[in-house]
Order: sequence, then structure tokens, then C-alpha cells
Amino acid sequence: MASRPDPLNRGVVFKGSGQVAVENIPFPSFDITLQTGERRRCHHGVIIKVFASNICGSDMHMVRGRTDAQPGMILGHEVTGQVLKVGGDVETLAVGNWVSVPFNVACGRCSNCKERKPNLCLRTNSKQPGAAYGYVNMGGWPGGQCDYMLVPYADFNCLKLPDSPKTMDKILDLAFLSDILPTAYHGCIGAGVCTGKTVYIAGAGPVGVCATACCKLLGASTIIVGDYNTERLATIEKMGCSTVDLNQDPEISSSLKNILGKQYVDCSVECVGFEANGHHGYSRKTGHEIAEVLNTLFKITKPGGGIGVMGVYLPSDSGAKDSDSKKGTIPLEYGTAWNAGLCMMGGQCPTMNYQEDLMNAILAGRLEVAKYMNIEIISLEDAPQAYKDFCEGAPKKYIIDPHGMLKKQVSFTA
Amino acid sequence: MASRPDPLNRGVVFKGSGQVAVENIPFPSFDITLQTGERRRCHHGVIIKVFASNICGSDMHMVRGRTDAQPGMILGHEVTGQVLKVGGDVETLAVGNWVSVPFNVACGRCSNCKERKPNLCLRTNSKQPGAAYGYVNMGGWPGGQCDYMLVPYADFNCLKLPDSPKTMDKILDLAFLSDILPTAYHGCIGAGVCTGKTVYIAGAGPVGVCATACCKLLGASTIIVGDYNTERLATIEKMGCSTVDLNQDPEISSSLKNILGKQYVDCSVECVGFEANGHHGYSRKTGHEIAEVLNTLFKITKPGGGIGVMGVYLPSDSGAKDSDSKKGTIPLEYGTAWNAGLCMMGGQCPTMNYQEDLMNAILAGRLEVAKYMNIEIISLEDAPQAYKDFCEGAPKKYIIDPHGMLKKQVSFTA
Amino acid sequence: MASRPDPLNRGVVFKGSGQVAVENIPFPSFDITLQTGERRRCHHGVIIKVFASNICGSDMHMVRGRTDAQPGMILGHEVTGQVLKVGGDVETLAVGNWVSVPFNVACGRCSNCKERKPNLCLRTNSKQPGAAYGYVNMGGWPGGQCDYMLVPYADFNCLKLPDSPKTMDKILDLAFLSDILPTAYHGCIGAGVCTGKTVYIAGAGPVGVCATACCKLLGASTIIVGDYNTERLATIEKMGCSTVDLNQDPEISSSLKNILGKQYVDCSVECVGFEANGHHGYSRKTGHEIAEVLNTLFKITKPGGGIGVMGVYLPSDSGAKDSDSKKGTIPLEYGTAWNAGLCMMGGQCPTMNYQEDLMNAILAGRLEVAKYMNIEIISLEDAPQAYKDFCEGAPKKYIIDPHGMLKKQVSFTA
Amino acid sequence: MASRPDPLNRGVVFKGSGQVAVENIPFPSFDITLQTGERRRCHHGVIIKVFASNICGSDMHMVRGRTDAQPGMILGHEVTGQVLKVGGDVETLAVGNWVSVPFNVACGRCSNCKERKPNLCLRTNSKQPGAAYGYVNMGGWPGGQCDYMLVPYADFNCLKLPDSPKTMDKILDLAFLSDILPTAYHGCIGAGVCTGKTVYIAGAGPVGVCATACCKLLGASTIIVGDYNTERLATIEKMGCSTVDLNQDPEISSSLKNILGKQYVDCSVECVGFEANGHHGYSRKTGHEIAEVLNTLFKITKPGGGIGVMGVYLPSDSGAKDSDSKKGTIPLEYGTAWNAGLCMMGGQCPTMNYQEDLMNAILAGRLEVAKYMNIEIISLEDAPQAYKDFCEGAPKKYIIDPHGMLKKQVSFTA
Repeated sequence: MASRPDPLNRGVVFKGSGQVAVENIPFPSFDITLQTGERRRCHHGVIIKVFASNICGSDMHMVRGRTDAQPGMILGHEVTGQVLKVGGDVETLAVGNWVSVPFNVACGRCSNCKERKPNLCLRTNSKQPGAAYGYVNMGGWPGGQCDYMLVPYADFNCLKLPDSPKTMDKILDLAFLSDILPTAYHGCIGAGVCTGKTVYIAGAGPVGVCATACCKLLGASTIIVGDYNTERLATIEKMGCSTVDLNQDPEISSSLKNILGKQYVDCSVECVGFEANGHHGYSRKTGHEIAEVLNTLFKITKPGGGIGVMGVYLPSDSGAKDSDSKKGTIPLEYGTAWNAGLCMMGGQCPTMNYQEDLMNAILAGRLEVAKYMNIEIISLEDAPQAYKDFCEGAPKKYIIDPHGMLKKQVSFTA
Repeated sequence: MASRPDPLNRGVVFKGSGQVAVENIPFPSFDITLQTGERRRCHHGVIIKVFASNICGSDMHMVRGRTDAQPGMILGHEVTGQVLKVGGDVETLAVGNWVSVPFNVACGRCSNCKERKPNLCLRTNSKQPGAAYGYVNMGGWPGGQCDYMLVPYADFNCLKLPDSPKTMDKILDLAFLSDILPTAYHGCIGAGVCTGKTVYIAGAGPVGVCATACCKLLGASTIIVGDYNTERLATIEKMGCSTVDLNQDPEISSSLKNILGKQYVDCSVECVGFEANGHHGYSRKTGHEIAEVLNTLFKITKPGGGIGVMGVYLPSDSGAKDSDSKKGTIPLEYGTAWNAGLCMMGGQCPTMNYQEDLMNAILAGRLEVAKYMNIEIISLEDAPQAYKDFCEGAPKKYIIDPHGMLKKQVSFTA
Repeated sequence: MASRPDPLNRGVVFKGSGQVAVENIPFPSFDITLQTGERRRCHHGVIIKVFASNICGSDMHMVRGRTDAQPGMILGHEVTGQVLKVGGDVETLAVGNWVSVPFNVACGRCSNCKERKPNLCLRTNSKQPGAAYGYVNMGGWPGGQCDYMLVPYADFNCLKLPDSPKTMDKILDLAFLSDILPTAYHGCIGAGVCTGKTVYIAGAGPVGVCATACCKLLGASTIIVGDYNTERLATIEKMGCSTVDLNQDPEISSSLKNILGKQYVDCSVECVGFEANGHHGYSRKTGHEIAEVLNTLFKITKPGGGIGVMGVYLPSDSGAKDSDSKKGTIPLEYGTAWNAGLCMMGGQCPTMNYQEDLMNAILAGRLEVAKYMNIEIISLEDAPQAYKDFCEGAPKKYIIDPHGMLKKQVSFTA
Repeated sequence: MASRPDPLNRGVVFKGSGQVAVENIPFPSFDITLQTGERRRCHHGVIIKVFASNICGSDMHMVRGRTDAQPGMILGHEVTGQVLKVGGDVETLAVGNWVSVPFNVACGRCSNCKERKPNLCLRTNSKQPGAAYGYVNMGGWPGGQCDYMLVPYADFNCLKLPDSPKTMDKILDLAFLSDILPTAYHGCIGAGVCTGKTVYIAGAGPVGVCATACCKLLGASTIIVGDYNTERLATIEKMGCSTVDLNQDPEISSSLKNILGKQYVDCSVECVGFEANGHHGYSRKTGHEIAEVLNTLFKITKPGGGIGVMGVYLPSDSGAKDSDSKKGTIPLEYGTAWNAGLCMMGGQCPTMNYQEDLMNAILAGRLEVAKYMNIEIISLEDAPQAYKDFCEGAPKKYIIDPHGMLKKQVSFTA
């Protein structure tokens, strides 16, 4: 190891409700101090040069001040990059490897990780099971909207991308392996999507687009996506699927009857979350209740069917209007759900469980999402403006390209 | 078929909120008119002589006026008996066979029945998927708290009990195969109970006792049952399991720490339902919220764990105090549940799926519940008083013995 | 019911090793005598007018004299048709309904049928679990290569096809729902085929083509099919999949390395069966061992992977050369399979379990097989010649069209 | 770390067919050279003081010369001990912790380990997936029949036993967590053993005893164990289960009819392996075929049922008599198995997947095996004699107690 100084590292920093800024941040070290103040020795980690770092809808919850996120956090948990430095205990990765990084930080050594629940790792977050990069209450790990980032337990956490031209051809699709594509797939699996099933997807944002593609991959027959945002619905139609304009038919059921000839779908996937009224993508209604999305799904999902809840619901919502909502309590029509014998599966995705299969599907040309995403590749310095626009409902998926690498590789048109 | 007149048939009839009476009812015919007014031709049915017909906690919801049940309904859905007459299309049953009758009425011919969802039969209830005997909104089928009863689609719906002395030895255990034993087992399976798991069971009533026995059968390590009724808790202790007196520790968590050394159980089973405050078994608190039981389970179930909800929740509660509760809407701390990645499985049990295995376990001496039930065998005429006592919290399980058959066979002591 | 006489019924009859003939046969009755001599009262049945009745590779085993099939059996178990008469106990079907008939004859009332194992019905075959139409040792039910046929337990056994123009558009695809499409799908499920997996399919005959289409539907990444018949392999290539010409690379492994860059596939599907050397499709080698196909799969399937065995293996092979083979004993390299922790799933398909989902996939345009089948639509009278040609390796799928109905409806080009 | 010299290390060494000896061996180092000659840096490992190291039936295969095992291998893969030294990368273990060591050596970082297939780790054995301590073709890792042993990837591979008096109370039961108890349980799960099922277990040796206990824990109704060794069968009877003396009824079926009243069991577990005639426990017949056990199970397992094959079958058997057997090829009546739709699951157990649940069951008093094992606790120096006796059929389970620790702790009587 020569004496060359570490390169400059810049990152997107949460500065408080409504504010993000790009600032100089420390170059990552294998001996890290988390935002919680804990020190961790991470010789099991790698330091990666970040080549794609997406802005996620769930980042908005923090930026809009709906969480307890503390200023100073480096944001970003959808990361793809190249290994720059390898910790002393790493065995399966080498400098130069391209990797997709699951948003979950998992140790690979606790009982949950051994049981394929890396989303509920017992050791990477001292406050509750489950950790993530750059996210509130998720352990305080620095995020990946920056030039360089530490990935701890790298043998366990990194998915190596093949060193082949195909990887570059598909890099924009592969960039979604870190979160929203596996998340959407997890929701579909939880909802019971498989051969021949009919599916309703609540929300046509980036996760909704991924869920649509996953339903196709899983062999669903009819896929129906609902949203208030008609631009987003137009994208779904390009994918060859049906849509419900919620401005016209908020109850959905009459649309279902038109499309399917019946009032129920076999499976539902919730891709919206507790800020249904905040995205401006999903809902522009006034007085919209947090529980509306789920309560609707209770009514349109076939009795005995499944609901995969991939939108985020949190146990505390500091920006909520009433005391119930502030602690994540919502008025669910549970009698309806119970009576219909519905099974609800929700929570954060165990990303790594699905990554390799989805990567293989992408590389084999079986799964395409990027071209339906209205992707905008931006520099780190553009991130604050992108946050602002996304917060206001821009129907886009922003990918931060800190080193200008994607722009060079990709000639992408929707 | 000779000209002998049909015997007299007496049954327990719902007369309106708070009232049941024993009345003469028609002897069953293979051509039946349901309470909904529909006529059904049931040559696929058998007429049975009822030998055991239990009063169920869920009957209380109707009797207490918390549902839309219409006067005139013959109650009873936990039935064991002997075949007296066989319809022309029946192939597997003969006069004299002993049968356990699942509480679900299922056709065996619709897509849900073929998919092992007899609890959601699409053809036996014209209003919604799923039918039951003697229950509100469940298709209007006459119940089984009576001398003689029709079981439609008998080849599909009846579990034949072996013609052996063992059957009589175990008849009180076998009497629970029609509902609460499979229901409890279904909840355990939904909760993920298996080898070595720790379990919390909410409610020490008859379903709670069955769940306790099922958890033992499934190989759980530590089983903990909570209730406000200390008599019921004493029964659980006789079963060799741990208890939480909710009068002392309503939050449960400190009890868990004492018993397990940690704040979570692996699995939770809800055996209470929406009338948590009504049973007087589970709760004597004032102002008790319907959602309290589930919200507590959200907090004490290990992240990534499962909750089986076997207590009944309904989409309409005519006896509720506020408009939300009237339509089955309850304030659930769903943010907590989602954050913990909990899976909730609820709804009526597909009874027949479990019956044969549980019967075999009973006959092999592997599963005993009757002796922990505080059973009282009563005549049909005693049923109204039993309803009254059960409604007021008597920690008993009443079995109606219309023909005095059980009393003769059984010399049972707890 | 008027006095109009029953129409003439003609059927394909097995006359002994190497011989089939088209003969007058009785018009079906609801009171039937099986080939075993048993009488069955089938008022639960329907009589259908047969519109498509495929010749199956497994029919060849009988015709080539490799089984104990007795002369006089009416052949045919891949049947699609229209309801002509309805038995008195039938509730869900009406005259005029189009139906696909699973090849399994199942009662819907025994414990196996209730457990979703209609392929192992305990009541429709008095010799062993599991029955089929027109097949040796399968209960003696008359087959469906004829004008009119009885389908017993019709509510349970028939899949109703929608009364819509789409059904006619897709009728040739739907004609495979009775057997080979669900059979192939079952093999894929048994092999663990799902998102992103690599698969090897042994055999490019009609079942192999269906398996290829199912693997695509299930989201497999790379699909590789091996056969000795190069015409059949050409069809697979039209489907966009990879092939192995076994004449060039009987060990397969060097082809796998070329295609995948590794020596293993994740999953294998066996679509050949015990007459590997007889189809002239799969193998033209001399001295070919029955066990060859499975032993090869043991070596090329990834340790921990799955093998779905859809080719037929039987407990008695009267045409075999040695005493071991005569009783279905074959020299399997089981040490290799065990050492690799492979899971083998075989046996007849529980057809109905998959039919509705696959039908929905076909109707939604997600699953196409007919156009890759080299289908020849023939009259009943042409059946003997078709048997002869198929037996000699003609790479075709013959569909008998007894009433000239398909020819009218379909203008089909590969 | 002071300069105290490493203690003396003695181990049981395979010296060639029929020979084992206790010799001085090197004290383990974190930089290890495997028997294959490969060097591995194992700072992720711990060095343990071995407190219990069982002799396994599968060790006999090597000692009897039925494998390619090379002289010089330190034997032993059923190890329990206490952590003495901790590698620099270990995070979850500390000096003094008691641990059970799964017989599989797994890295926790490859795709198979991440998919819960530690039995097929892709990185710990350079020749094939899957590694083990002290076993032929399993990567060359030194075994644990010695004073001190290296456990690599210790965070992943070790199950920590609670630091409580209960651990010592149950230490003999816990000693089987390293292999035969999870192995037997895996076989039961593979066979589909669950509530109410009937089970046949082939072989009443130590694995058969464990399988019997696991079937009870899993809620099986009737459990039947067959063997030729009547002493072993007597033990099974003490466990309250049924037995078949194969000397009297080698076909088993008449015993099944007596016990169950039918010819089939729901599930079968094979606890014998390819040396059925070698154990002298299972078979004393002359000319016994290797395939006999499996072929019998094909006939007595209910169609649609499952067979868990826990006995070892290997791809090469250097001591076999014929060329087929030498490469692990055996004459299986596969036609019978296929016709019955049986599912066979075999291969080495993913031990760690079951360890924690089984440990919890043991500590809660739900699972007892040691008292049915006829355990003999021996010193290291006694091991060669124990190998000789076990090889000759002594119906015992030998536990090597290198440090005389068990003898002190345990006052154990059967």
C-alpha cells in the first residue's frame, strides 16, 4: 500500500427538514464511527467507488421531515460501484470487481442472517433488528450518495456483477438490484403472484414499474396499476399493462369489472406507503387518509389472496397531523381483511435473497425496467435540485453518477 | 325407504339480541330452504343424528347482538354425529358411520375448494366466499345445536371417525375436530410455530387451550398464555405451560423477560377476537380498545415472526360504540408491524385440511385437549342457560348432547 | 329427454402389440362398465362431444407392447370437448360448455383428492392409487380418442373454458391443458425452475416443447434442450432457446460449458421416460440403457438442485430385454445423486392443480406452445396411420378432430 | 498473548483400511494446511478444546476401506467443545464459550451458504460442493477426535450453547447437535413427517434413534422402526414406538398390516446407507443388495409420500464387489417409485439450519435422545478399540471425552 493520499470524497448530506446539501465528507475507513456514535472495525468490508447511486422515494420521508432523521446523515442506499480497497478479512472480492450493494446492512453471522433474513440483522443496528445505509433509525451507516463508500461484511453483502460487456449494456437495469427491483419482487412473492394470476399494483412510481415488470416475469396474466399521476400511468401502458386512473375511479372496482369482468384480483402489491398523499404521484386528494391504500386493497383482493406491502410504514411519523398517526397507528378495516382471509406480508425486503436470480434474468434479457423509468442521470452536485423536483412529484428516477461514468457508458433512451 | 314418520327435531334458535330458545324445528330434508330464502337440492348430503354440538365463543358475538344475525337462525357449527340417512349421490358414507363435521360448508367443486380453501367456498354462500352452519352472513345453513341436521356435500365435508372402541374413548377430544382444534392449529401454523419456537398465545379460553396443546404437538419450546381470567390461567398451568396474568402485567413484556430472558417470542397466536372486552374471560378493563390485542402482539413478536389471528374480526359490528368500529375499522399500529416485518395470517380456518392429521394424533394419544377444557355436557334444553353463563364468563366449554349419548359413553373427569 | 337415438360413436381401439383400429364403440352411459369389469354409476358425470383428442407419447408405450395393456381398450387421455349431456348430480356444468378434461380420473372425495393429489385418487382405480382414461393399469376407464366420451365426477374433473372468441382463437394451445402442458409445468416446478434459473430439458418432443415454454413463463434465464432428433432441436431454436445435439455431445457437459461457462444447470427436467431408445426422437443409439437419461442429469444438475421426472417410468415393462428392466429396476448412479444432494420429483401430474393458471396465461397471450408443435390435425379414421408414423419418430403432435370441428375453426400455421 | 507453549494435541488418525491409531498431531493454527495440500488463512476461525467427539457410523465407511480416504487423516466430525483461542476476524465468540460444531464446513459467503445450503458450500472444498471435518473427499479439513481443533468461519459455523447449568445437565443430548440429530431431523422433514403422520424408519442405530425422537417431536402418530439387530429394536420399544424385526419379516408389509391395519406408511426415513450389510446392525443377511433398503421403502411408502434418505450413498465404493457398485450405481426399482409419485430427498444435512431449534427443544425438555443411545464415554486412547467394536456391530454410541470432562460432569444412566 503506497502513500498516495485518499481522494476527495463528496456526499449528499441531510441538513434538516427540507434541506440536503452536497458537502465534503471523510474518505471511508475500515474503522468507522457510525452516526450513532458507535465505532466499528470493518476489516470485513470493502471501499467502493460509487458509479450509480439512486434517489429513492423512501429518502423523501426523511427529507420531508416525516421521520426522526438527524442532520448530518449522508443519504443514499441504492448503490452500485467498483471495489477500490479490500479489507483484510475479505475473501471473495478483489479490486476492480463491479458490485451491487443491497440496501440492507447485514452481518452474515447472526441467527437472522443465517435464516435468510438479512433485512433483520441482529448485529448491525444496536437499536432494532435491521440496518440500512443512510437511513433513519437503521444503524447510522453512512449512505452511498457520494464518491466513495464503505460496504461492511462485503463477502456477505456484495453481489458481484460479471466482468463482461453485458454488464455494461445492462448497467442501468442492474443499478436497480440494490433496492427497488428486489423490493418490488419481494412484494409480488408476498402477494402470491405466479403463473396466470391477476394483480393490482397500487402506485405507478419507480417501485410500481418494477413490480409491473416482476409480475410479467412471474407469469401473471393481467396486471393492473393504479395511480393519480397520469404521466406515470402512461408509462405502464407502454409496458403493455392495464391502468386505473384514480382521479376517475378512486374505488377501483368499476375499472376491475371492465378489465377483468370481476370485482377481485388474485393478488395486490402496495407500492405507495404511509405518505400516500405526499408523493403527489399517488394522490392529490385533500384529506387523504394514510390507511386508504390498504383499505382499498382489502376490498379488491380476492378472499384468500395475498397483499404484499412494499410501501414504507413507520412506527413514528413526526410530521403527522394527529397523535395516532404520529405513532404509526392507522384506521385499518381489519374486519374486512380478516373476513376475507387475506394474508398481509410487509416490511423491508431481504434484498440479497433475490439479487442473483434477478441479475441473471436481466443479463438473459428477460427483465427490463430501466427503459420504463424515465431515468435522469445526474451529477452529485445536481442532487439537491433532484431531491426538490422528486419531492414535488417529478415522474422520474434520478441516478447520481458521481464520477461521470454512467454518462460515458450509457447511451440510453426511454 | 319405509313410511316411518321422521322423528321430532328440537333445536337452539336465535331469537334476537340476548335471546336463544329451544324450539321444535323441521326434520332435515335433502331439499332444503336456507335462511336466505334460497332453495338447494342436496342429494349429495347426509342427515346425521347429532351426538355432540359445542357452544362456541363465536356464537356469543351473535347472541350478544354484535352482528346482523336474523332471528330464527338455528345455531351451532361444532358438530359430531352419526349418519342416519344418505343422499342419493353420496358414495363414501353409510348409515351408522360416525362423522366429524367441519364448521365450513364447502362444495368441493369450485376453484377455491379445489385449491384447499374450503373456508372460502364460492358456491355455498351467495353473498361472499365461505359458508358455515348456523352463522350470520355465512349462507343461512341451519346449525347443528339440534337433534338432527343436514350435512350437504357429505363426501367432501365429513370426516369419518374409525369404527373402533378408541373413537368412543376419545370422543370428547374428537368433538373438537369440527372447529376449535383445527382453528387453533391453523393459527399456530400461520404464526410459524414449529420445533423449538417460543410462542405467546393471547387468550386462555377454549381456543387458547387448543392452541396450547397444538403448540406442544408442534414441538414448541416455551409456550406462554396470557389472560385476565385467572381460573383459565390455572388450567394452562396444569398443561405445564407458562402464563401471564394481564391484570398484573398488561404490557406482557416484563413477564416475557422473566420467563424467556428476552422481550420477544418467535410466534404469536391471537385467540380472542374483536370482542376482547366482551368475553369477560380475556378482559375486564374499562375502555378496552378492540385493537389492543393485536397492537400488543405487534410489540412482543420477534421481528420477522408471524401472528396467527384466530379470534374473529368482522366487517360489521352493529353493537360497537363508534362509527369506525361499526364497520370493523380499528386503530392498528401498523407502522410497528411493518417495521418489524411481521406476517399476519387470519381468517376462518380451512378445517378439513387439518382434521385427519389431528384425528390421528388424538387416536394415537399424542394430543389431549378435553381434559383441560372444563367441559360441561348438557342437554338441548339446558342450552339457553349455558349461553347465559358462557356469556357472563363461565370458564367452561359446553357440549350439547341432544340424545344423552355422551353422558352414557363418557365417564370423564378433568 | 326425448327419444332421439344416441348418435354413432367411433373410437381408436388397442388391438394388441403394434395394432390399433378405429371401431364402433358404445355411446357412453352414466352407468358404465369399466375394462376391469367393474360397474360404476356416474350420475356425477357428463358426456362430452370430443373436439380435440391428442395422441400422446405415453400411448406409444402401450402400442409398442411395452405394457400389460389388454386388447379392447379405447385409447386417448388428452381430451377437449363440449358438454352434450349432464348427469343428475352435476351442478357446475351445462350443455354446451366447453371443457378441458385432465387425463387423471379423480373422485374429489377421497383424502388424496382433498389434499390436491388427484393424480393419486384412491377411489377411481381399484388396483392402485391414480386413474386415467384409456391407459393400462389406470382403472379401465374408456379413453377419449372417439366421438363421445364420459367424464365422471365432472364438477371436479372438468375445467370450463370461457365462452368467448378468445377460446376459439387459442383452442390449439388450450388443447394441451389436458395433459402435456400441465405435465411439463409440474416437472418444471418439481425441478425448482423459477426466476433467473438455468435449466436443462432432456427431450425435445411435445413435452419438451411444453417444458421449454413453461420455463420461459417461469422466468428462467437460460434454457437448454437436448435431443438426438435434429428436426426437433430446430423447433427449440425457433423458440429462442439453446440446444444440445446429443449425436455430437452425448455427455452434454461440453455444451454446457460453451453455453453457460459452467458444468452445471440449476434445474433439470426429464421429458423422455423409460423408452428413451424407442421414441426415435430422443435416442437412436444402440444398446441405450434405460437409466442413461437420469444418470446424465445426476451429473449435470447443480448440487442441491432439483430434477423433475416427467417421462414415464413403470413398475413393469413386458417388452424389456432383461429381468431387471422387466420389473422397472434400472441401474441408477444413486451415489452420485445422493452425494450432490439432488431432489428427484416424479410421477404423474396432478393436472387440475395447474390448469386454471395455465389457461389464464394462454388466454392472456403469455404462453404459446401450439405453434412450436408441428401439429397435424387428423380425423379419427387417420389415427392408425398417425400412430404408426409417431411410433417411427415423426416429429409431430397429432390431434384427432373427430367431428371436423378444429379444421373449421382453426387456420393455423406454425 | 504470552509465550506459553501450545499444549500437546493427540488425535485419532486413519492409517489405512481397518486401522486407526491415536497419535501426536500438531496443535491447530489459524494458518492451516489441509490434507489436500492447500493452505488456508483462517483468522475467521476459533480453536476449541474438544469436550465431546462422537464416533459416527459414517466413519466406518472409511475405516472399513469402502472409500478413497487417504492415510493420515484425523477423523471426527461430531464435535462439541469450548473456545480456547479466537481468530482476529471473529466477532460473536469469546474464549470460554461452549459451542456445538456442525459437521459441515461452510464459508457463509458463497451463494450456496447464503441460500441456506451450508452442506454444499462452494468454497471450503476445492473438489466438489460441500466440506466436512475429517472425512474423505470433503476438503481435507482435520477432524475433531482430538484434544484441540480448528473451526474455520467460526461466527458462521458455531452454535453457541447457553452459559447455564441446563447446558451441562443436557450436555449428552446437546452433543448430538453436531450431526446425527439434525441429520435425522432433516430426513424426517424431507420425508414429510408432521402432525398425525405414520412413519417407517429403516435402521435402529443411533441415527434411527434420533429419527424416532424427531418423529415424536414433530407430532407423528405411529412410528415404526425396522432392523435386524434385536438389541437395537429393544431400545426403540423403550421409546414407546413399534418395531419390525427384519429377521422375521424382511418384507415389512405384514408387520405394517398388523400395526396400522394397512400396507403403507405416510413417510419413510432411511437411516442405513450403502453399507446396509456392513453395519451388522441393520443386516446380517448374506448377499444383501445395496439397493434393498430403498427398494423396500418404494413399496411401503404411500403413493404421493416422501422418503428422506439420511444413510450415506457415495459415488465411489472402492470396497464393492462389482463394477456398478464401485461407482455407486445400484439397481433401483425406479418404475415403482415413479408410478407411486414418491419424492426422494437425500444428501448431507444442512446441519446449522436445524441446530438452534433443536437446541431449544432439548433445553426445554421436549427432546431426549441420549438416554436411548447406549452411550459409552471413552478416552481418546480407547478410540481404536471402540472403532473395532462399533465396526463389529456393538449397539453403542461412543463419545470420545479427550479431557475427561464429560465423565466429571455427567452421571448418566440409560
